[in-house]
Amino acid sequence: MTERAYVRDGAEIYRRSFAIIRAESDLARFNAAEEPVAVRIIHACGMPEIARDIVMSKSFAERARQALKDGAPIFCDSKMVANGVTRARLPAGNDVLCTLDDPSVPEIAKRLDNTRSAAALELWRERLAGSVVAIGNAPTALFRLLDMLDEGAPSPAVVIGLPVGFVGAMESKEALAEHGGVPFLIVRGRKGGSAMAAAAINALASERE
Amino acid sequence: MTERAYVRDGAEIYRRSFAIIRAESDLARFNAAEEPVAVRIIHACGMPEIARDIVMSKSFAERARQALKDGAPIFCDSKMVANGVTRARLPAGNDVLCTLDDPSVPEIAKRLDNTRSAAALELWRERLAGSVVAIGNAPTALFRLLDMLDEGAPSPAVVIGLPVGFVGAMESKEALAEHGGVPFLIVRGRKGGSAMAAAAINALASERE
Repeated sequence: MTERAYVRDGAEIYRRSFAIIRAESDLARFNAAEEPVAVRIIHACGMPEIARDIVMSKSFAERARQALKDGAPIFCDSKMVANGVTRARLPAGNDVLCTLDDPSVPEIAKRLDNTRSAAALELWRERLAGSVVAIGNAPTALFRLLDMLDEGAPSPAVVIGLPVGFVGAMESKEALAEHGGVPFLIVRGRKGGSAMAAAAINALASERE
Repeated sequence: MTERAYVRDGAEIYRRSFAIIRAESDLARFNAAEEPVAVRIIHACGMPEIARDIVMSKSFAERARQALKDGAPIFCDSKMVANGVTRARLPAGNDVLCTLDDPSVPEIAKRLDNTRSAAALELWRERLAGSVVAIGNAPTALFRLLDMLDEGAPSPAVVIGLPVGFVGAMESKEALAEHGGVPFLIVRGRKGGSAMAAAAINALASERE
């Protein structure tokens, strides 16, 4: 039986993928710090057309890259985001943290009358200042973060806001963009997700493609 | 400071999301066993229009549901897929397995001249018969699975083939559909990913929405 013919070299698959993405996507409005982030988000979802929905605030990419180099912890709203971060790309052995499964979270959720995803953010407070936040799943987590910031919680260096879905995803991302208090990345509309959030981190973590 | 107004009840968010999906998506061609699978795939990506690209072979949904009830292990090509499976929905405490980080994998990859994702499948052989396979990331893993089946490896009960991307994703999914030897679910084209693969498992695992 003859084996199928396909590209089996991981590095070559990445090279060809990024070349196709750059050939098919309109990336002209992104600067040099932003462009690889857009490329990896497109890579994560297979959709060059999503380029038009990606919004990064003015200083987002530079600040995120610097924060990671400075050793900022990366707070993730879901284990899928945390698992998607390629540890070998992180410039300072940065901690990648998801507090969703902490035993205190169900009790906090009950007290806040909110989801576990939102409640889990209470456990971020101590290291929130200067951190990199990546929300790839829950609109409630992103809404809760904005409420915490309004209430005086320490500010992350940047927020990657990429919840996906039909109830609150779009609204929470627009609320982040309108907040004005923290550099952000969003994808406008319903699209988003853990893979895109992790892809953004992976792009920001290293100059290496 | 007034907190933002948004839906904070997880169950209510699911209910509203599924209602929006059913109102906006063309699901007429799916039967009762298939429809919740399509709904959760749409839920995972925020795209009602993806319904037209979802293909399930004739017996796929019934066989997948039965295999899970019978305690079939779930083999995942990435940790993101494995982390996306909601353990509380599994009908028989099914094992959810990802062998990518096994210490033997780099050596196997070198021997096979293939990616680690493809090499990791060598460690599935012993329990592959009757299993549920969920590939949400690597085309090379799906191609390798098909080669293994052609070479006489035991057959899974079903294969969820949802690699995403620009090099091999589309081709590997079409190869699965053309294989004919195993019930399958694919999304035609470049779209796919870990979240969709986990969503399919979560839909098949329980009648509960």
